[in-house]
Amino acid sequence: MKPIQLDPNSGGAGRMPLVCIPLVARGAGALLQEAAAAAAKGPDLLEWRVDFFEGVARSGEVVALAARIAQAAGGLPLLFTRRCPREGGESNGLSERQAVDLYSAVCSARAAQMIDFEMGNDPAHVRELREVSRSNGVRMVMSFHDFQGTPALEVLNRHFLQAEQLGADIAKVAVMPRGMQDVLTLLTATWQSSQRLSIPLVSMAMGAEGALTRLCGWAFGSAMTFGAGQLGSAPGQLPVDELQAGLALLRKAAGR
Amino acid sequence: MKPIQLDPNSGGAGRMPLVCIPLVARGAGALLQEAAAAAAKGPDLLEWRVDFFEGVARSGEVVALAARIAQAAGGLPLLFTRRCPREGGESNGLSERQAVDLYSAVCSARAAQMIDFEMGNDPAHVRELREVSRSNGVRMVMSFHDFQGTPALEVLNRHFLQAEQLGADIAKVAVMPRGMQDVLTLLTATWQSSQRLSIPLVSMAMGAEGALTRLCGWAFGSAMTFGAGQLGSAPGQLPVDELQAGLALLRKAAGR
Repeated sequence: MKPIQLDPNSGGAGRMPLVCIPLVARGAGALLQEAAAAAAKGPDLLEWRVDFFEGVARSGEVVALAARIAQAAGGLPLLFTRRCPREGGESNGLSERQAVDLYSAVCSARAAQMIDFEMGNDPAHVRELREVSRSNGVRMVMSFHDFQGTPALEVLNRHFLQAEQLGADIAKVAVMPRGMQDVLTLLTATWQSSQRLSIPLVSMAMGAEGALTRLCGWAFGSAMTFGAGQLGSAPGQLPVDELQAGLALLRKAAGR
Repeated sequence: MKPIQLDPNSGGAGRMPLVCIPLVARGAGALLQEAAAAAAKGPDLLEWRVDFFEGVARSGEVVALAARIAQAAGGLPLLFTRRCPREGGESNGLSERQAVDLYSAVCSARAAQMIDFEMGNDPAHVRELREVSRSNGVRMVMSFHDFQGTPALEVLNRHFLQAEQLGADIAKVAVMPRGMQDVLTLLTATWQSSQRLSIPLVSMAMGAEGALTRLCGWAFGSAMTFGAGQLGSAPGQLPVDELQAGLALLRKAAGR
C-alpha cells in the first residue's frame, strides 16, 4: 500500500485513499465557483479537467486561472489534467504538441502540484513532460483509460508497470467493465501491481457496475478516488459526500 | 443473481441482498430483548444462533422460544442455526445427532422459516434434515466455514456446487482471508458460482480485511449479508445501521 504523498502541509498527506473532485466547468467564472463549492466538501485535492475549459487554447489564461482556482479552493492541491479525446477527454482542437506546451507552461509556473498525462502519448512528449515536471517539482501521473472495455489482467499489470518504467510518480488505470468479472480483473490487477510497483497507483472500473471500485479500490491498493462535486467527469462517480460517507464506513470496518 | 425468496408477505422478499441480524444472547429473556431491538433496526430477517443459548439441550424449550422470538421481532422471518464447534460455533456439549433432532423439532413445529446446517456433516444427517425441512416447508441453507484461511478458487466453487447437489435451497460459504488476494478469491468464486448454480448463494470473507465483502458481495451474487445488532456473531460484521447505510450508497451507485 503506497499512499500518495502530497505537500506535507496538506491535510490529506499520506491518507489512503485521497479523495479528488474533478472540475469540469467551461467558463472561468463557473470554474472558480465550482472550485469553491468543491473545496467546501472537504476533498484532499481537486482535479482541473482543463479539456472542458473554453479557453484551453490560451496558455497564459490557463496558467493564471490555475492559480486563481487554487486560491478559490483555499489552497487545496491541484491536479492539472488535459484528457485527450482518444482516452475520453473533450474534443477541443488542441493538438498533442499544444497540450505538451500547455502542461509545460503550468509546470514552469508551478501552477499545479500534479499533472496527468496519458502514457500512450508520443514517447518523446512523455519524456519531455517528465523532465519539465520533475525540474519544477510537479508530480506526474501517467494514465491509461479504456472507455470501451477491460483489457486482460496481464495487460492491465503491464500498463501499471509501463507508467513506472516511464518515470511516473503515480500510475493510473481506468477501465469500463462489461460485467462483474471485469471488475474483479481490475481489482486483481490493482492488488498485484500495488505489491510489485514502487510508486503509488490509482485505478477504477467506471460505470454503474464499477462504482464499487471507487469505494473499495483503496483496500486493494488504489491511492486516490474521484467523487463528483456539482458534475462528475466520468461515468460511475459517486457524489463526493456519499463517497466520503462510504469510505468512512469501510475504513472503520477494516480497522483503519 | 438469484435473490432469496422469503415468505412473499415479508418485506424483504426478493431484495438483494437480504440483511440478517444474528441473535447471540445466552438467556431467554435476553434473547427476546435482543430480538426486539434487532427488529427495530429494520433487517429482512433474524438468525437465531442457538448454539449460544444456555438451554440448547432442552428441545421443547428451544421450539417454544423460537416462536416467542419471532413474535418479539414482530413476525420477521427466522433463520435457525446451531453452528457446530468445528465450524466456529459455541461448544455446548450437543452432539451432531442431538443437533439433528433439535433441527427436526424446530422444522416439525414450523418454528423457523429457514435452517442452516453445515454441508460437511454426516451425509445421512444432511439427507435426514433435508427431508424433514422440505416436508415442513422450511428452507435449508447448507453452509461451509473456514475460520483459519481461504481455500483455493476451485475448492470454493466445489463447496457452492456441493450444497446444490445435496439439495440445499441456499448455499453459504464463509472464509477467513489471509490477505486481499483471498478476498478476491472469495468474490471470484461467488461470482462464478452465482452464474452456474440454480439456487441463491451467500458468501463472505470474515475479519477486518474481508469486511468489504459484507457490503459489496451482493454485486457479485451473494444474496444475504449479516450485520451486528447488539453483538456480532462473527469477526468483521459491521453494525447493522452502518451496513444498511453502506448498502444504500452502493445500490444507488450501481443504479439498483
